[in-house]
Amino acid sequence: MRDVLPDEVALRDWAMGQILAVYRRHGFVRIETPAVESLRLLLRSEGGENEKLIFKILKRGDKLAAAASPDEMADLGLRFDLTVPLVRYYAHNQARLPQPLKAIQIGPVWRAERPQQGRYRQFTQCDIDILGVSSEVAEIELILATTEALAALGLKDLTVRLNDRRALSAMVAHCGFAPSRAGSVFIALDKLDKVGRDEVAAELLAAGHGADAIERLLAILASGTTPADLKARLAAGAEPAVWQGLQRIVDTVEAQAAGRFRLVFDATLVRGMGYYTGPIFEVQHGGQTSSIAGGGRYDRMVGRFIGRDVPATGFSIGFERVIGILLERGPAAETPGERVALVFDETMPALAPMLALARDLREQGKHVLLEARAKRLGKQLQELEARGFRRIGLVEADGSVEWRGPRTGGVGGTGGVGETKP
Amino acid sequence: MRDVLPDEVALRDWAMGQILAVYRRHGFVRIETPAVESLRLLLRSEGGENEKLIFKILKRGDKLAAAASPDEMADLGLRFDLTVPLVRYYAHNQARLPQPLKAIQIGPVWRAERPQQGRYRQFTQCDIDILGVSSEVAEIELILATTEALAALGLKDLTVRLNDRRALSAMVAHCGFAPSRAGSVFIALDKLDKVGRDEVAAELLAAGHGADAIERLLAILASGTTPADLKARLAAGAEPAVWQGLQRIVDTVEAQAAGRFRLVFDATLVRGMGYYTGPIFEVQHGGQTSSIAGGGRYDRMVGRFIGRDVPATGFSIGFERVIGILLERGPAAETPGERVALVFDETMPALAPMLALARDLREQGKHVLLEARAKRLGKQLQELEARGFRRIGLVEADGSVEWRGPRTGGVGGTGGVGETKP
Repeated sequence: MRDVLPDEVALRDWAMGQILAVYRRHGFVRIETPAVESLRLLLRSEGGENEKLIFKILKRGDKLAAAASPDEMADLGLRFDLTVPLVRYYAHNQARLPQPLKAIQIGPVWRAERPQQGRYRQFTQCDIDILGVSSEVAEIELILATTEALAALGLKDLTVRLNDRRALSAMVAHCGFAPSRAGSVFIALDKLDKVGRDEVAAELLAAGHGADAIERLLAILASGTTPADLKARLAAGAEPAVWQGLQRIVDTVEAQAAGRFRLVFDATLVRGMGYYTGPIFEVQHGGQTSSIAGGGRYDRMVGRFIGRDVPATGFSIGFERVIGILLERGPAAETPGERVALVFDETMPALAPMLALARDLREQGKHVLLEARAKRLGKQLQELEARGFRRIGLVEADGSVEWRGPRTGGVGGTGGVGETKP
Repeated sequence: MRDVLPDEVALRDWAMGQILAVYRRHGFVRIETPAVESLRLLLRSEGGENEKLIFKILKRGDKLAAAASPDEMADLGLRFDLTVPLVRYYAHNQARLPQPLKAIQIGPVWRAERPQQGRYRQFTQCDIDILGVSSEVAEIELILATTEALAALGLKDLTVRLNDRRALSAMVAHCGFAPSRAGSVFIALDKLDKVGRDEVAAELLAAGHGADAIERLLAILASGTTPADLKARLAAGAEPAVWQGLQRIVDTVEAQAAGRFRLVFDATLVRGMGYYTGPIFEVQHGGQTSSIAGGGRYDRMVGRFIGRDVPATGFSIGFERVIGILLERGPAAETPGERVALVFDETMPALAPMLALARDLREQGKHVLLEARAKRLGKQLQELEARGFRRIGLVEADGSVEWRGPRTGGVGGTGGVGETKP
């Protein structure tokens, strides 16, 4: 876990504000769940590898004393994603929530991973989810809202990749892989754009899959570029609704893209989580193969909590990756409010004139820093300039001000020396 | 811990935005520390009772296996306030931070308290701190910024109570209490406004303090209403700088109050934390005796981390209490952006005209919800109205829109039926 310095916090706050504003305009509402959930919940969530990375919280008092083994010493844990808490939240609060629920979640999650470059044990996720919509209008809305949010951050050259878990299953079955071993085929397939066809074939062979099935799979992948192509290849391999749905998403979203992003159907897209049941999607930025956002449909997760299925789709922005890109891009985003510093003598008896000036400037929306004059004034002024204070006023004991910095900043009216003299 | 429903989240986000905007205009910058800190740090922080309420995180793997007792099974904990992490952050990152540091922190903290009405195990704190300023200009800035932030939330009838730990010590010594037992006098005194003079006297007597000292204390408290009064009573009981500093804070802040709040010197104000070394202050709202914000000077805390003292002051808004007041006040604060709902037939083939209309409205800053037509349209429309959607458009299969709600909303130009017909 790590500290965040002020400049990066300002960038993060700005980015969060942009994303939130877009999502709100799309009719989503923000919800909040606690950081801590019951371990029982976290451990039954099909969270895959993530479940092994849960930070567990020690019981207290009598409960701790009664624990016979380390396994019994914890009953709470820090959330490792925002999807499991969302589903629990929906189950608990259903009657008081709008139906369908279009939820925004922004907040930290924790995973006890080995720290490495760009990976932290606490990081921020930013999700939107639609609970209660079974038609592919949900996927369309998620894709349009998320690409608009990413565009609002100034991210260009976005590619949305789209696939469907049911199409994947149909393809694997059609090629002759054993349905019970589809998982290992998905895992290998997921690496295709990183390692290439030969490596994937080798991995599948090493995993004991038949050479015929592998060959058929690669042939299909080499040819199909639209849902219709794939459907034609697979014949009646999946229900017609799967293909129609994918085609509707492609057609509708493409018509709205307006140059902000590209949408491609990608029969190799898998996405890790075990809970997806239908369309899945990812966003890539520039030439990078790793994704900056991902999501899909998970229609059977809510049912495990409330006993009846509720259709659900979600899209999650990898906030830390996005911030990484924005930081690389160089000079930070717009900071709201011009920065003005007033440098004063700490021992001067009357602060009132300076405080009144500061107040006026703040009412104009400016960020006004009061700072006692340092022994080395020149160094102090340089540091203030480096921190983005374009206007610096030296406040004299009589309340008059000598302004440094560009005259055209509009500070205190016409600018210049002494305008606050009593 | 608890879930927060969308309406309260919207209020919280609005309140946080207001507070942040005021603090930024006052030249503060937001910083972020992780939720999890080392237990060793948390346990050496003079956090008093709070240290007993730390949620501890179970070690993992080999480290857990090597633990001989529950005491050794955790080396991390969730932060119980934002002051301890701030000081650790300052010590770690000092060279890369502005000096003096004017920091904003907003974030959750965790305490394993017995849950009760209005108290949660996860709650939000909202602090500003100034590190590196020894003059009482720091206290003045904190008080002005925090009262302005509270006023920006619409909170009127604010009273700031001010005292000084050194004045308290001088008063207790002057009355003849044993200096080694000053702590128990402070604790009793702290209850004065809640339980009254007689109860406090009884508690002090029961604690074994002399009747003479108690009588002298109550006499002083009955008379002194300004720092000068108290100083005159105590003769040379504290350094002159203490009284001068208090008087400067009173005079300067009062001159700026402009009716937004009242400032009172209160010789009975104690504040719980052990780490305060100078002026202390609290804000009360309306007739309530409990405070909605509190803070003070803690000049010796940073020194315990970096080996040299750094003057420090902080002011913390009790965010949950403030939200409680705002919720009681009734109808929520301004929500940005008019809410428009477009109700459509999920099976209609072409979504493009509706999506284009939604896009136009969003570009005008409106929050546009797309919702599939429910079986019971009347009930659906009622629910949407109850959720604040003042304009509702029924989108027909041909793309035309029939508007419900006030005609004067300015939606889509002149309003009325069918303006989006192709």
